[in-house]
Amino acid sequence: MQWYMVAVLLTILTSSQGILTTLSQSNGRYLFDYATVPFLAEFFKLVVSGLFLWREHRISPSVRMTREWKTVRLYPIPSVIYLIHNNVQFATLTFVDTSTYQIMGNLKIVTTGILFRLFLRRKLSNLQWMAIVLLAVGTTTSQVKGCGEASCNSLFSAPIQGYLLGILSACLSALAGVYTEFLMKKNNDSLYWQNVQLYTFGVIFNMARLLLDDFRSGFEKGPWWQRLLNGYSIITWMVVLNLGSTGLLVSWLMKYADNIVKVYSTSMAMLLTTVLSIYLFSFKPTLQLFLGIIICMMSLHMYFAHPNMLVDLPTVKSPPESLKEVSIERQTDS
Amino acid sequence: MQWYMVAVLLTILTSSQGILTTLSQSNGRYLFDYATVPFLAEFFKLVVSGLFLWREHRISPSVRMTREWKTVRLYPIPSVIYLIHNNVQFATLTFVDTSTYQIMGNLKIVTTGILFRLFLRRKLSNLQWMAIVLLAVGTTTSQVKGCGEASCNSLFSAPIQGYLLGILSACLSALAGVYTEFLMKKNNDSLYWQNVQLYTFGVIFNMARLLLDDFRSGFEKGPWWQRLLNGYSIITWMVVLNLGSTGLLVSWLMKYADNIVKVYSTSMAMLLTTVLSIYLFSFKPTLQLFLGIIICMMSLHMYFAHPNMLVDLPTVKSPPESLKEVSIERQTDS
Repeated sequence: MQWYMVAVLLTILTSSQGILTTLSQSNGRYLFDYATVPFLAEFFKLVVSGLFLWREHRISPSVRMTREWKTVRLYPIPSVIYLIHNNVQFATLTFVDTSTYQIMGNLKIVTTGILFRLFLRRKLSNLQWMAIVLLAVGTTTSQVKGCGEASCNSLFSAPIQGYLLGILSACLSALAGVYTEFLMKKNNDSLYWQNVQLYTFGVIFNMARLLLDDFRSGFEKGPWWQRLLNGYSIITWMVVLNLGSTGLLVSWLMKYADNIVKVYSTSMAMLLTTVLSIYLFSFKPTLQLFLGIIICMMSLHMYFAHPNMLVDLPTVKSPPESLKEVSIERQTDS
Repeated sequence: MQWYMVAVLLTILTSSQGILTTLSQSNGRYLFDYATVPFLAEFFKLVVSGLFLWREHRISPSVRMTREWKTVRLYPIPSVIYLIHNNVQFATLTFVDTSTYQIMGNLKIVTTGILFRLFLRRKLSNLQWMAIVLLAVGTTTSQVKGCGEASCNSLFSAPIQGYLLGILSACLSALAGVYTEFLMKKNNDSLYWQNVQLYTFGVIFNMARLLLDDFRSGFEKGPWWQRLLNGYSIITWMVVLNLGSTGLLVSWLMKYADNIVKVYSTSMAMLLTTVLSIYLFSFKPTLQLFLGIIICMMSLHMYFAHPNMLVDLPTVKSPPESLKEVSIERQTDS
């Protein structure tokens, strides 16, 4: 499978996720406990990966599966980072409103680029750096509050703690992604085996979270496993399956592509969701959405297009020896 | 003189123009006839160019001055285009409000690129085209109406005639620029001689316009030459001199640089004016201004930076013969 096919699929599913989540609400609230959704999604991913691993093992029993503690112990770390991230997110929202939080969320595009460079030591060209910044600028542009919208809090009026926590949040989110990529590419283990480890810890951490919620509320609604599927509709199940599938695609991209591809997929999904919302939920299209889409498309092209195509350097496909001299000259001069 | 020094100077003067024009108003209106400003500016440019031409002629009497009618007759054309443009602008404003007109004005960045390619046959790289579109997107982004601003007309609600006239206006504006560049580069005539021709027609057309205004108002305020300097303050004179100097710089750029350089200068000036307005007229800084500035800076870098610097191609400064093979291979593969 080509990585860009997976990236396009991820864009479509991530976009559906936003729309399904909105559709799963009735009168603006959830009839089910939302914390059960990621738990079930992790469980779904674990089952799917387990089945694939079993099939793979049946076909070729020599499938690579590192079982040393030294390696296995690295797999809970993404869950730990997400746990810290969730708490930072919660703290941030006590200082800034949700729309400012959403705007600051675009920072994770840039922090992902930075950590990608620092931790994974991947070199990006000057143009690719510009593309990453433009992607963040483009998604932010599309979210600029329109003239006449209800809430009108200025982005620049939150307390400084809010911005610092927002930056921390963006760094943690990027760290989780970059760390997962490191983990998936660390060795040649089967993707499914790596997934099984990742999602086992995912299931455990999500269970712990549900249990903690129960303790906090003093078990007044009963333990979570007794009311796990309360209020679930067909749409809720679609949200779960969609979230799970999204996770599986991200995992694939982390092993066979990289974090930047994932960031482009999810940013494009955000724009797609907004465009679809115009039709589905009669959102008013804004000039800033249109501008944001152009900026992100340019960024996509800048990042992924072949450099020679962008700068029109002479194509040097086996020219006669005498011509090579000339084309090299032209490149340094142009 | 380096072209980028002239471009920076043009940015500063164009930006001052906006600020001086605002300062020249009292209580939001002009105490003088605004149509006299471009007339006096043309006159100033004619005098300055005449003096420079005289000096140049004294130093080297062999200075190139084509005096054939076949060439001279081309010089009123920019004035004619501006005349048509002014009327189209007036017609456009009967269909759209000023802020929509201002937003549509950014289209001239793109139309300039297109006419530059078509009429002057200048080739731009893929990346440079993207830079031009981004410049238009960036300036537009900075002008997006903020949350809570007074006028709240949707950009998408004007009648179709408004948009068509807006596009026509952008084309005429670009045509005037591209035609002037063609004229200035057509032969090796002295810049000052070319200016003298250009501004002589400029003075004539502006005089005709003032006279026409008088006819329209039935000479009730007397002929224009009797009230030419009525209501002029020191600031008004600064507006005139500033506008004249801007024109001289543009003329220089048309001969020794090009229209795209001019477009970048004036777009940057627009952003600079907005930033200065925050301090001078206590404008509220917006997120969209900040985003617009980032986009335009990226565009500037994309357009003017050396391609090799942007895409990190291997530098091929006289490597040993054996290495050349390899670096060519890498370029086609990378």
